[in-house]
Parts: sequence; C-alpha cells; structure tokens
Amino acid sequence: MQISLLGCGLMGTPMSRRLLAAGLPLTVWNRTRAKAEALAADGAQVADTPAQAVAQADIVITMLEHGGVVEGVLFNPDLPGAALGLRPGTLLIDMSSILPEQAQRHAARLADLGVQALDAPVSGGTVGAEAGSLAIMAGGIEADFERARAILEVLGRPVHVGPTGSGQLTKLANQMIVGITIGAVAEALLLAERGGANPTKVRQALRGGFAESRILEVHGQRMVDGDFTKRGSLAIQLKDLRNALHTSAGLGFDAPITQHLAALYEQAAQHGFAELDQSGLYRELQRRQTDPDA
Amino acid sequence: MQISLLGCGLMGTPMSRRLLAAGLPLTVWNRTRAKAEALAADGAQVADTPAQAVAQADIVITMLEHGGVVEGVLFNPDLPGAALGLRPGTLLIDMSSILPEQAQRHAARLADLGVQALDAPVSGGTVGAEAGSLAIMAGGIEADFERARAILEVLGRPVHVGPTGSGQLTKLANQMIVGITIGAVAEALLLAERGGANPTKVRQALRGGFAESRILEVHGQRMVDGDFTKRGSLAIQLKDLRNALHTSAGLGFDAPITQHLAALYEQAAQHGFAELDQSGLYRELQRRQTDPDA
Repeated sequence: MQISLLGCGLMGTPMSRRLLAAGLPLTVWNRTRAKAEALAADGAQVADTPAQAVAQADIVITMLEHGGVVEGVLFNPDLPGAALGLRPGTLLIDMSSILPEQAQRHAARLADLGVQALDAPVSGGTVGAEAGSLAIMAGGIEADFERARAILEVLGRPVHVGPTGSGQLTKLANQMIVGITIGAVAEALLLAERGGANPTKVRQALRGGFAESRILEVHGQRMVDGDFTKRGSLAIQLKDLRNALHTSAGLGFDAPITQHLAALYEQAAQHGFAELDQSGLYRELQRRQTDPDA
Repeated sequence: MQISLLGCGLMGTPMSRRLLAAGLPLTVWNRTRAKAEALAADGAQVADTPAQAVAQADIVITMLEHGGVVEGVLFNPDLPGAALGLRPGTLLIDMSSILPEQAQRHAARLADLGVQALDAPVSGGTVGAEAGSLAIMAGGIEADFERARAILEVLGRPVHVGPTGSGQLTKLANQMIVGITIGAVAEALLLAERGGANPTKVRQALRGGFAESRILEVHGQRMVDGDFTKRGSLAIQLKDLRNALHTSAGLGFDAPITQHLAALYEQAAQHGFAELDQSGLYRELQRRQTDPDA
C-alpha cells in the first residue's frame, strides 16, 4: 500500500515521521520543498508536484493550513493539483481543519473522479502528532473509515463521527469547547486573585475535581505563570470560533455562548493580543478590570 | 484528639464514615436526629445539640446547606449553637459552601471566642466524599491548615489557597468553571447533532484532546444519554453563579462570561428546568433552537 502526504508543516512533518517509523512507504510533497526534503532522511520519497505525489498512491493524506489551500492543492491545474494525478479508487483523507461545507464540496468533486474522501481533522497539537496520540474525528462512509483505520491508528485515536463533513463539524465543536473553557478558567483565576487567593494554589486546588480539564492543566498553568508565548495563537482561536458561528448560521443554529466568546476574543485581538497564545484571553479579561467601558 | 461533625447530610454522612474508618473518635450532630443516629452503628457518639456536640472537641467540622444555616448552627443561642460550647483553642473547619464574606464574618466572631477557623469547601460530590477523593480548598492561616491537614487528607486532597475566605472564593471559582464548561459542552454537542453528526461518537472523539474535561466525561455523558435526572441541581448551579457575581461585584470585578451563563441558567429555570441536573442547561440551549425570540 502506497501512501502520500501533502503538507509537511508543523503537523504534517511529525505525522510523516510516525508513518515512516511504522514501516509505511510514504511519498511527500510540500510547497516549500526543503521541508519535504527534510523527510528524505527518514525514508520518504519527495515529489515535485501534488499530482506527481499521488500518482501511485492508494491513500493520500492532506495536512494544510485552511480550506482554500486544500482546494488549491487538490484542484488547481497550475500546480498541478492532486486531482490531475489521483487514480479512481484512491482514498483521500483530509486532516486539515476546514469548514464542513468545504469538506462536503471537496468530497463531491473527488467523487466525480472516482476518489473517496474522509474529513479527519485532529486535536492534540504537535505534541500529540509526535506522540501518535492525536484525537482524530472522521467523517465519511463506514467502509472508507475502516479502510483508513490502521493508518489513522498510527497517528492517534480515530473515531467515526458521522457522514462527510461531520469530522470538520466535530473539530469546530472541539474549538468551541476549548475557546469557551479558556474563558471560564481565565475569569475564575482572575476573580480568585482579585479576592486575595494565590492563583497557583487555586489552580492546584481545582485540579481533580469537577473543574478539571486539559485547559485547566495546560492553559491554566500558562495563566498562573503569566506565560502567553504563542503555541496556538489567539488569532487562530478567533478564526475557529468565527468558523463555528458561520457553520451554525448556515444550519439555523443559535450559539449564544460561542457568540459571546467570539466577541471577547475579537476585543482581545483589537487590544493587541492576537499573536499571544489562545490562553492570552486572560490578558483581555484582566484589561477589562481597569477599563470597564471597553 | 476529639473531632465533632455538625451536619450529617448527603456529604456529611460519608465524610463521617471515612473519619470513623480512619479510627478517629467522632461526635456528630444533625438537626434531624435520625441521620446522626445512623452513624452510631459506625462508632459515632451522637449529641443532642451543637453546643453539646463540640464541648469536648479539639477540631469541629461543619457541613451544612448554606451560610445562613452555618450561622445558626454556630451562633443561634436557641439551639444552643456551637458557640456556646466551643472551648478556646479549638479549630473549626467549615466545609460548607458559603460566601467568602460570610466565612470572614464567622471567623471574626469565632476569633472573639478564642476559636480558630478554616473555610474548607469541597468539590467532587458524594462519590468523592465516599472515596475520600474530594478536592478541598482551604482558607486561613498556615498553622491552622497544618493542624487540619491530616484530617483533611482522610477526606480528600487539601490545598491551602490563601487567607480566610479564600477557600470559599476558590469554591466559587470552581462553580464558575463548572457552570460555564457545561454550557460549552452542551452548545458544542447540540451544534454537532444539528449538523448531522452522532453525539455519542462526537463526545467519544473529543475525549482525550484539548476539549477533555470532567464535565465532558460526566455531564457530557448525561447529555448524549438524555439523562438529566438531578444529581446536582440546576437551581443550585444558578445560585452558585449568582453568589460568584455577588462576590465579584463586592470586589469591583467584571465577570462577563459568568454574567452571560447566569442569565442562561436563569432562563433555564424560568422555562421549567430548575430541578433538572446542572447538565440540563442542554435542554434550555436546545429549546432556544425552536424559540429564537426567547
């Protein structure tokens, strides 16, 4: 079985390394060739274009920045995109985070070529990619999920969540929970500190009870340390919430809490915090304490 | 060392059993005597009044419904309350959930009697009480925390979070996080379902990634099962958020996210969901989908 991976970025590179370490034959392509070349030492074949990269593939993984990039890498004839090389019967697994509607459109266009598609975005960051512990949320038909399962299990823990687009929808749900929970933890820690408690001790006391979460564990630590160096940016968190609201609107779904948090992240960006870590919402909530009219 | 416990309710009874099982001599009192009598079989002495219960105590634990009840059990001469029996040098550990300002007032009144006080509310429910795994957030001076430590470690994991009142403040912070995170999980699961994904699978896919939380684990399960039988009521969650906002206002602290969630829980109560489980906020967010003007 031949696998190709398009997009050797922060996530695609460690994912490629895991696939190679599992003994899978892998061909890679990246817009900036040097990043693909870096994987040759691990045993990857390096292709010149997306179309060439997928020409012999049974399974193709894409890991790109957003829906527009995915569309170009798949369908832009000037690259030439993967569509010009994909053989009927191939399975394309898009692990990028894009809108559900985009995933559905891509799947329809690929179906015209006899190519099957899964949307399988992930959660867990570069740490999860390196450890092979990514949460993977897959949308598509059962047969395609089963076909992809063994490969996805090299990368993390895949769950089949529903039909095409459901994986991306689940990723949006993930980002809603992450963004809102960051707000909850930030507001709670700020209140506790305002009232005279020790934030480091407060976080420690909350661990393990009903307030326990990965956000309290990871982002809460950044808040009590005052360390908002960007790992995942606030700007991207805002984009994710806007995508969730866009998708909600398209479904006629009312999402008041996400609406409220998106507005707070928007204010954070306007006040200069866009390139902080997502946990930097703490700085905006803190800033409000001395600027109540803003 | 003699210990007394006032309040043999849902939490006080399993807590008493753990203390007795640890070999600690325990005297108990409860307004409804039968609940105190039930602990006699486990080795507890049963007292007729709070004052009698504490007369020989070195350490007293109170576990009562709210600040008004604590005030009465401590200070109401008609019971007669504990204040009429406490000896100077005794340590009182109030593990009830009350307002920080109430804890500070009680501590001041007890200090007049030569009695030390810790506010040490808990998180983890009856399950945590039975298992001895409660998160315990203690406010007061270091010497009193150290004096209480061994006993608190029988009941769970104590952390000293700051001066008097800080324990209650941390509990409010806990309830803010719990209430807001319930909203996040509910809104995300409802959107995913609206968009055609399987909520049970979506929850499973989210577990273990950055959206992981005890709320996703416990309350998220109730949501996907449609099981909103009350364990901790929505009405009490609303009360906790109002207490958090009251305390915030007193400190001049702006808590926009808690404000927003309190309004949603208020609407939930107005629409008949007050006696559901806290996770029943899901029903209110669901109801809004068919009644956008409400």
